[in-house]
Amino acid sequence: MKIEDIFNKVDGIYISNPSWQETITDLNFFYFTRLLDSGLSEGASIFLAKDRKAIIVGALGEEDAKRSGFEVMVTKNKNDKDEILKKLFKDKKKIGLSFSTLTIQEFNNLKNNFPILEFIDVSPMINEMRAIKDDFEISLIREAAKIAGESVEEVLNYLKEGITEKEIAAQLSILFIKNGADSNAFTPIVSFGENAAEQHHFPGLRKLKKGDFVLIDFGAKYMKYNSDITRTYIFGKGDDKQKSIYATVKKAQEIGIKAVKDGVNGTDVQAAMRSFVDTTEYKDHCKYGATACNLVGHGLGLAVHDHNAIPGALLKKNMVITVEPGIYLKNYGGVRIEDDILVKENGYEILSPVNKEYREI
Amino acid sequence: MKIEDIFNKVDGIYISNPSWQETITDLNFFYFTRLLDSGLSEGASIFLAKDRKAIIVGALGEEDAKRSGFEVMVTKNKNDKDEILKKLFKDKKKIGLSFSTLTIQEFNNLKNNFPILEFIDVSPMINEMRAIKDDFEISLIREAAKIAGESVEEVLNYLKEGITEKEIAAQLSILFIKNGADSNAFTPIVSFGENAAEQHHFPGLRKLKKGDFVLIDFGAKYMKYNSDITRTYIFGKGDDKQKSIYATVKKAQEIGIKAVKDGVNGTDVQAAMRSFVDTTEYKDHCKYGATACNLVGHGLGLAVHDHNAIPGALLKKNMVITVEPGIYLKNYGGVRIEDDILVKENGYEILSPVNKEYREI
Repeated sequence: MKIEDIFNKVDGIYISNPSWQETITDLNFFYFTRLLDSGLSEGASIFLAKDRKAIIVGALGEEDAKRSGFEVMVTKNKNDKDEILKKLFKDKKKIGLSFSTLTIQEFNNLKNNFPILEFIDVSPMINEMRAIKDDFEISLIREAAKIAGESVEEVLNYLKEGITEKEIAAQLSILFIKNGADSNAFTPIVSFGENAAEQHHFPGLRKLKKGDFVLIDFGAKYMKYNSDITRTYIFGKGDDKQKSIYATVKKAQEIGIKAVKDGVNGTDVQAAMRSFVDTTEYKDHCKYGATACNLVGHGLGLAVHDHNAIPGALLKKNMVITVEPGIYLKNYGGVRIEDDILVKENGYEILSPVNKEYREI
Repeated sequence: MKIEDIFNKVDGIYISNPSWQETITDLNFFYFTRLLDSGLSEGASIFLAKDRKAIIVGALGEEDAKRSGFEVMVTKNKNDKDEILKKLFKDKKKIGLSFSTLTIQEFNNLKNNFPILEFIDVSPMINEMRAIKDDFEISLIREAAKIAGESVEEVLNYLKEGITEKEIAAQLSILFIKNGADSNAFTPIVSFGENAAEQHHFPGLRKLKKGDFVLIDFGAKYMKYNSDITRTYIFGKGDDKQKSIYATVKKAQEIGIKAVKDGVNGTDVQAAMRSFVDTTEYKDHCKYGATACNLVGHGLGLAVHDHNAIPGALLKKNMVITVEPGIYLKNYGGVRIEDDILVKENGYEILSPVNKEYREI
């Protein structure tokens, strides 16, 4: 899918971030403008056509907007914006919108102001475009993964008896920024001991004890692109059961990653890992929870959950996906190992080169 | 506006955060659930009725969701969610939605699945509720402001010749977390020298020089509530012009804050500041940019730009607003002083007790 393919269906694409809704952000705005080192988004919009790229911002955003290289159109009030859209939509019949991100309020305004236009949902096509990364995007994810990996190595120095999950999550967030990230990609999951059985555990006041699992699911955001990695350690000495769970997950992940290449279906990556885990004693422990035995992951990019990747999706060259098998034993603990994988024509490349040997800290 | 008033118009309220769209977050979800120390949002929804409060989440969110005290309904797949909504909407006629945050895609799904229901936009009513803070919310904003103030005092130690705006912004972000914040409320605006004339400057590679303005617009997020403060310093020795601009803005802000109380219109707060600035030599410099002479601010809460506050809005008891006059001289520099103000019955309370005397660092 290329943007030209979208222009075969519509005369223009309008992407809008609403005003007064800073938490409603359409990442397509950054995808098209490449304003990745900017504070611009709230209330900013773009219009793309075959022969025009325009960015519409309030006066405070003008300087930032210029860096996009787009034609910059400045609004002073709501009426201005309607006037600008009238100019941009002139002689157009079909306008593409992202129905998966645009709000009802904005849609209703557009329909009222432009009753003759036909509005078409182009979000599935844009998502298809966004799933395939170019070299620049890959370099940003690679850097986001590098920063995250360096930071997690440093945070291990802070592990000591009695420290809380919350404190480690905060320290890791600090290290990301110190090491050059914009911020966290998401609040790090830091799970000690039995909490490691909860895949989406939110870091709390659980204190670290000798013999605990230390599961850290972390990612850095660099120029608005994300990494998403998980490592699991043992604090102090691990026992045979912990070692065996770790070895099982590590082996499963190796099998999964090796199955990745252009043209393979994510379901097969999942199946490769499953058929191995099913030969082990942890087969049944894979049944806790609804999705706990979903051994695989998701696309990665401007969003951490960028697109559905596996299972069920065809993997294509230059997708970046996570492979993240885990074994979770309720009230006992768990191990997950997650890496960021670039799909290549004849295989894969691991973008997150972080030590994943069994380690006692 | 109380939730009972909304239930006079609709039989239930449905608030939904879409799946696979982590950057489309309806803050109303947190407002109603008070899940402020949680990683839950993507794909999570709530339904509120007179006699029912339900939260709908995927299996991974179940543990977090329980902390809301709501009835927890777990979905395993998309069909599950439709079945759950059928139960929740049973015997209902009018469902309230937030048109300013819900996506077209989700709205179309609802209309297709429930063709008999009437969907009504309740976002203006919810926004009106949210604008008035309760004691708990005020305590969170107060804490967010306290953390931000402590952090900015610490970051002044990092000001030295040659350091970049970006480095100070990163260090400040680190200090927020160290001092107990969840994160930044927004990327701090750090503007050196002439960049201080750009109100929404994004921190860049400009290096600090003796005699520069150092404008820092910063906020911490604490339990998902935000502070938003600006202080302007001089690095090294300031000259008479810098001192005079500073004194003018400081005086304007004092006048503005003193005008705040329940029942006053924000326009009058603005006018009080304007009429003072108009008596000074900086009157004309107030004309740079479209909104640069908007001396005032916005409501503050779960969003940094929580609601339109001044000008044009009636200030009510227990609103929290910013008062943020500035004087901006293009290519020269600028000064802004911004505080977070609780509107009280007979006056105001400053929630951001950060030193705002003229300071040379």
